[in-house]
Amino acid sequence: MTPPIDIVQVGLGPLGQMLTPVLEAKSSLRVVSALDIDPELAGTDLADLAGAGQGVSVSGTLDDALAPNPSVAVVTTVSELDRLWPQIQPLVEASIHIVSTCEELSHSWTTSPDLSRTIDEAAKSHGVSVLGTGINPGFLMDFLPSAVTAVCRRIDSVKVERIQDASSRRLPFRQKIGAGLNAEEFEQRTTAGKIRHVGLTESANFIAAKLGWSLDRTEDVVEPVITDVTVEGDDWVVEPGYATGVNQTGRGFIGDREVITLVFRAAVGQSDPHDTVSLTGDPDYSITVPGGTHGDVATCAIIANAIPSVIDALPGLRTMSDIPLVSCAP
Amino acid sequence: MTPPIDIVQVGLGPLGQMLTPVLEAKSSLRVVSALDIDPELAGTDLADLAGAGQGVSVSGTLDDALAPNPSVAVVTTVSELDRLWPQIQPLVEASIHIVSTCEELSHSWTTSPDLSRTIDEAAKSHGVSVLGTGINPGFLMDFLPSAVTAVCRRIDSVKVERIQDASSRRLPFRQKIGAGLNAEEFEQRTTAGKIRHVGLTESANFIAAKLGWSLDRTEDVVEPVITDVTVEGDDWVVEPGYATGVNQTGRGFIGDREVITLVFRAAVGQSDPHDTVSLTGDPDYSITVPGGTHGDVATCAIIANAIPSVIDALPGLRTMSDIPLVSCAP
Repeated sequence: MTPPIDIVQVGLGPLGQMLTPVLEAKSSLRVVSALDIDPELAGTDLADLAGAGQGVSVSGTLDDALAPNPSVAVVTTVSELDRLWPQIQPLVEASIHIVSTCEELSHSWTTSPDLSRTIDEAAKSHGVSVLGTGINPGFLMDFLPSAVTAVCRRIDSVKVERIQDASSRRLPFRQKIGAGLNAEEFEQRTTAGKIRHVGLTESANFIAAKLGWSLDRTEDVVEPVITDVTVEGDDWVVEPGYATGVNQTGRGFIGDREVITLVFRAAVGQSDPHDTVSLTGDPDYSITVPGGTHGDVATCAIIANAIPSVIDALPGLRTMSDIPLVSCAP
Repeated sequence: MTPPIDIVQVGLGPLGQMLTPVLEAKSSLRVVSALDIDPELAGTDLADLAGAGQGVSVSGTLDDALAPNPSVAVVTTVSELDRLWPQIQPLVEASIHIVSTCEELSHSWTTSPDLSRTIDEAAKSHGVSVLGTGINPGFLMDFLPSAVTAVCRRIDSVKVERIQDASSRRLPFRQKIGAGLNAEEFEQRTTAGKIRHVGLTESANFIAAKLGWSLDRTEDVVEPVITDVTVEGDDWVVEPGYATGVNQTGRGFIGDREVITLVFRAAVGQSDPHDTVSLTGDPDYSITVPGGTHGDVATCAIIANAIPSVIDALPGLRTMSDIPLVSCAP
């Protein structure tokens, strides 16, 4: 029996707290320490905070968190690469592998080549792997479509749709997608960067890199889904003319040709939720997840499941395409 | 621009001939030589035989085939590992990477541990990678379901269905699946090993290895699909009581519990052709290819597309789970 992999959780916000029981449920993994900058969390037992990880208290300092000698840090703090690097640099220099939900880390080579090289070199010189993953980015709009292209002789274009019905999601999620706003409020929140799913550009760059394509430009457009009928749930209602949610489209172009289209739609009352990869080429090919993939549950799962593959990967800044296949870890 | 990867094709039977134009259509690949034991093929120009590869003649000897110094051998000769090894050993010893359609090579560690170790050690000592792949085994019933488990917190069982309508396939394929036979003839041909799709056991072992499962036993059952109505195509008819094709089921058990079920059905008149991966666990999850995956076309595609990943892989006997992600090669 291989001993479990010792993990430090960095970031005990809502996602970090959801992750603890997923990590703890696996015989191959064990949470040995935790780190958060929130002074109110310091000293809290993980079991009280997250429902699992009894006996592990949240540390407020890196030294405390590294005392039990973890092999891997699971980092659930920020979406931006330039904010992540100062957080993970001391971990990498302590020879700790990194698995992070940081969206911009999932494929940063195109958007941040210099910082990517810095991370890659640091990881290599300390013999560890650094991976950004999750469902989206990390799986649905990058790994999965790239994997599916393997069965085609030629690919002309790649389209991925992730269509979610947010009706049963909690209020914070419905607010995050702008449900109930009018067009002006939606635009204000979009302009303020409050309604934006990070990662479509990274996913487009991931696919392009795998297909050997050189994209001339990418775009990432956020728009409201405006309903023309009344949509209502148990404790909410959206009147005609208001937003039921967000439709975000990432596109990648070669010249004027749109070769990658990534549609992320989350709206209350959305019919036919599903995830679909559609390839045009020789031959055309498509693959569908009926009902779609649950965001939070699947994100926690893939983060936990990626840990053994990151341990087995070559040192450096890695993506989901160059580590051993991530599968459900025992 | 990276120069193309130089390839020797070993085996110019029907599948090898289908592969040549697929390899030649890719700017990243180039067929520089070919080898076949059939003396009638010696000296034939590949373009005359396979419709692509002009100026490359089929060699009858290994020395001739290796003269242009290929980096990778694409081997489409046999399904059995013990017959393959003598064919590829001299290639490995000449430091040539191997990509093969040999079904038993796709995941041979469980069924042939000693020979697998021999191959692995030879490959490592000559700095090359050896990969068996294809659609099935290689993708649909092993790589794809294993990849999809990444989004689940826990997996209890894995089922894959590959349901094909053979109505429009050519006579040799319809014969191969036993279409038109009565139950007794079908059983005779099955007993003689004439109706058998090789690879379900390898796929079950691949999935188990990825999930950290130890299977207590596997089985591989071949049965006729008997029609109770008349089924007919342009130039054929199957009367009630006769076989329209084959239903083959691979199963993997832990104790008495069937944890892996792989259903391969190819029959004329089969309704609703599709490929589906169904996972039970936390949460349940499924993914479907509407219409299914074309056997020959997709097999040729994935073999060609795997070549760059095999070049980039660590030396040794590899599977689709431990090489860089295979995507459509440019």
